[in-house]
Amino acid sequence: MTAYAQLTHTWKRLHHLSHVQSIVWWDQQSMMPPAGNGARADALAEMATLIHGIRTDIGLKPMIEAASAESLGEVERANLREIRRDWRSANALPVNLVERKSIAGSRCEHAWRTQRPANDWAGFLPNFKEVVKVAREEAAFLAAETGLCKYDALMDNYEPGMTAQRLDALFGELLTWLPDLVKQVRARQATQTVIAPRGPFPKAAQYALGLDVMKLLGFNFEGGRLDESAHPFCGGVPEDTRLTTRYREDDFMGSLMGVIHETGHGRYEQNLPREWLGQPVSWARSAGIHESQSLSFEMQIGLSRAFVGQIAPLVANHFGLQPAFEKENLYQQFIRVVPGYIRVEADELTYPLHVILRYRIERALIEGDIEAEDIPALWDQAMQDFLDLDTHGNFTNGCLQDVHWGEGLFGYFPSYTLGAMYAAQWFAAIRRAVPDLDARMAAGDIAPALDWLKANVWRQGSRWTTDELVTRATGSPLDAAHYRRHLETRYLGD
Amino acid sequence: MTAYAQLTHTWKRLHHLSHVQSIVWWDQQSMMPPAGNGARADALAEMATLIHGIRTDIGLKPMIEAASAESLGEVERANLREIRRDWRSANALPVNLVERKSIAGSRCEHAWRTQRPANDWAGFLPNFKEVVKVAREEAAFLAAETGLCKYDALMDNYEPGMTAQRLDALFGELLTWLPDLVKQVRARQATQTVIAPRGPFPKAAQYALGLDVMKLLGFNFEGGRLDESAHPFCGGVPEDTRLTTRYREDDFMGSLMGVIHETGHGRYEQNLPREWLGQPVSWARSAGIHESQSLSFEMQIGLSRAFVGQIAPLVANHFGLQPAFEKENLYQQFIRVVPGYIRVEADELTYPLHVILRYRIERALIEGDIEAEDIPALWDQAMQDFLDLDTHGNFTNGCLQDVHWGEGLFGYFPSYTLGAMYAAQWFAAIRRAVPDLDARMAAGDIAPALDWLKANVWRQGSRWTTDELVTRATGSPLDAAHYRRHLETRYLGD
Repeated sequence: MTAYAQLTHTWKRLHHLSHVQSIVWWDQQSMMPPAGNGARADALAEMATLIHGIRTDIGLKPMIEAASAESLGEVERANLREIRRDWRSANALPVNLVERKSIAGSRCEHAWRTQRPANDWAGFLPNFKEVVKVAREEAAFLAAETGLCKYDALMDNYEPGMTAQRLDALFGELLTWLPDLVKQVRARQATQTVIAPRGPFPKAAQYALGLDVMKLLGFNFEGGRLDESAHPFCGGVPEDTRLTTRYREDDFMGSLMGVIHETGHGRYEQNLPREWLGQPVSWARSAGIHESQSLSFEMQIGLSRAFVGQIAPLVANHFGLQPAFEKENLYQQFIRVVPGYIRVEADELTYPLHVILRYRIERALIEGDIEAEDIPALWDQAMQDFLDLDTHGNFTNGCLQDVHWGEGLFGYFPSYTLGAMYAAQWFAAIRRAVPDLDARMAAGDIAPALDWLKANVWRQGSRWTTDELVTRATGSPLDAAHYRRHLETRYLGD
Repeated sequence: MTAYAQLTHTWKRLHHLSHVQSIVWWDQQSMMPPAGNGARADALAEMATLIHGIRTDIGLKPMIEAASAESLGEVERANLREIRRDWRSANALPVNLVERKSIAGSRCEHAWRTQRPANDWAGFLPNFKEVVKVAREEAAFLAAETGLCKYDALMDNYEPGMTAQRLDALFGELLTWLPDLVKQVRARQATQTVIAPRGPFPKAAQYALGLDVMKLLGFNFEGGRLDESAHPFCGGVPEDTRLTTRYREDDFMGSLMGVIHETGHGRYEQNLPREWLGQPVSWARSAGIHESQSLSFEMQIGLSRAFVGQIAPLVANHFGLQPAFEKENLYQQFIRVVPGYIRVEADELTYPLHVILRYRIERALIEGDIEAEDIPALWDQAMQDFLDLDTHGNFTNGCLQDVHWGEGLFGYFPSYTLGAMYAAQWFAAIRRAVPDLDARMAAGDIAPALDWLKANVWRQGSRWTTDELVTRATGSPLDAAHYRRHLETRYLGD
């Protein structure tokens, strides 16, 4: 057996074991009764140890080196590149650092659950300083290994190829126009009258509406499900994709947009290339590209006037007729812009400002330019500058709101806005290929958009680097001009 | 670390991995969308290989020998006995035989799915002869290993300590009175008028009724669930016990008795000794003892006049009032005896006859006294003798009805009737300890019975051999006189 064949055999085993892990994790979030949690945590830890043992087997390094010298086809070479990436991410850190990272993150996250509601930044700080210390060591290790700067080395886990230098350019440019655009749109929307939907919206009806909309969006229910969990996610495996959402009976838009968002993730997973199944080359390209699919569904399709027009009758079917469900009114309701403290509740227009704020702080923190103590003042200043909001002393809805940092997750936030930018670029390309896209969508035909995404993104897996993928699909690497045009058209265009 | 401590560490790991395996298997039966099946089968096969690898590690044999020489407490010694049993069952057969067994069973079972509805005994026979051949080799291997006779060696996997010699005595005695009792009861019931419940019975209402009855029976929903599957089962793990049932909207009694039955299995699992969790000494004692719990719930409690009186108002709550739900009428409906072809649909009184028929045939088959070709004639004769039914030429509802033999599962059938006998013996002991048991149950208090089972069976796990367990709990080993008394009292007593 060639070294390459031995490697694919190992990653096929990992594929099977991570199938089991994914389904059991989904069960934990959506099905498991509360008293099952202790045993489940032990069982998942055993699986993680086992999988880690396979990914760090000392035989893999020479095998990867030997495979590099073998004669391989193009896809096989791409697969070997991704195998090496996956191997490196499991083997980069000394065992001792992995343990310290896990302990510091668990301790900080666990205390955060009560510190956040208690607005207790002072209590959070000592735990968090340890998390930052370990994250800086981790970043230094990965930087030495990869030759990247420290923050880029962390980001490489989620967005291979992306750099802080490029982000600075992209986000810097965004800041020259986005805060002003928010103000303009706010002033414009202040003159409009929009009728708010009247609840309650029974959970069973919201669930049924979600299924209808997933069908419209082509989700394959033969190989997937929709359930409920505390935090919406897309889990499971490509062959059996499990989406969740959460319900509030006084508001149906949250669960509905959640379902549309997760359906984007889900269809990407369901349509990853089956011919390379189980191999890293068949995996989703990156966190940002994954997010570009959920945001293509949520923002490009879901919030479009054409699609809202399609779902308005479904909404009325499930909740009964009311004036708020008239197509144009429902559309205006969906695209309402309201600056707020909370990232996960932000509208399309203000969301990127929350991300840029976090990116700037976490980058400076990892590079050692600021310390944890400096965060609140920087946070308050940016919220004032970007969104005209006062967060002074409000840690609960300020810098304590996200779980990411407490868990030691640095370098992930940019993926959200990169995803929104990629999504705009996909749809610019789709409109070039299908000039009557909006008319067709208004007539209920979203197939052209979905077919394009399937051919150009989903079916490509990790065959190309991100830049290659984007260039092959759209003719150029990431270009934020598409994003600006999309936002201006939607929010000022008519 | 002592050899014993190393062993407990290994079985703790196996406990975690089998947790994952159990939950994923439950998901496959109750949640998984159809297209997920291929990937799931591969993932479960990977888990099985992995677990088998741990159970057959060559280091275990000397470790078990070393532990036997260590100074151990009573529970530890019992645990070592059960570890050795588990190790032996994983290591007894040569790899080649395990593979041939798996292939022969899969092939025969797969073809059986279409051969049964097609009444195709001739088509089934060649595959089945291979299954029998392999099963005989397996039995010979296990017999040489254990010193038992061949059939006993197979049965030892499910009912350690039980022998064909004892079964012959137990079942032979049963046959001296049970067929006559069936005739007597049939004649008696022919003179009674019983009003049948009128459907439809909506699934959601059946589910809600099931939950109510599970609560009455003390099922712990903090550590378990009720769901739906094609075949009812009790799965999951002691810390998170997953019951299922199936629904027919023209009949609620099937799903209800299914729920009561599985709740018996479930409460046993939920109350196995937590202080030895993860170790074989904490496992359920045997298939027959497990069945004795489900049958304690289904037959001893569920079919009692007192308990039916308790649930009659619940039935009316969920389906609306109707004359059939009057307490005495509902009770008579539940204990109706109707001889039929199908074991899994049989009533309490005729069920054991189906089991004895199968036991006699499978024992003779394994011992080499008959060949597969002889089965239909033996089947027809026994159905005629025991139940006065003609099955000649009816393979679909005759000897092709069960999946057990086709899959190569020999030695399991006796557990069903052993369970019914043990259940009667438990309740004889409970009535000695709690003379007013029936009055208390009629007043809605089933706690005395459940507390007794918890203390005497559930909390004992596998600490004792089956005979020791039964003797400690009831004062004597298995005694079928209790079973006869139970049936005569219920069916002829008033």
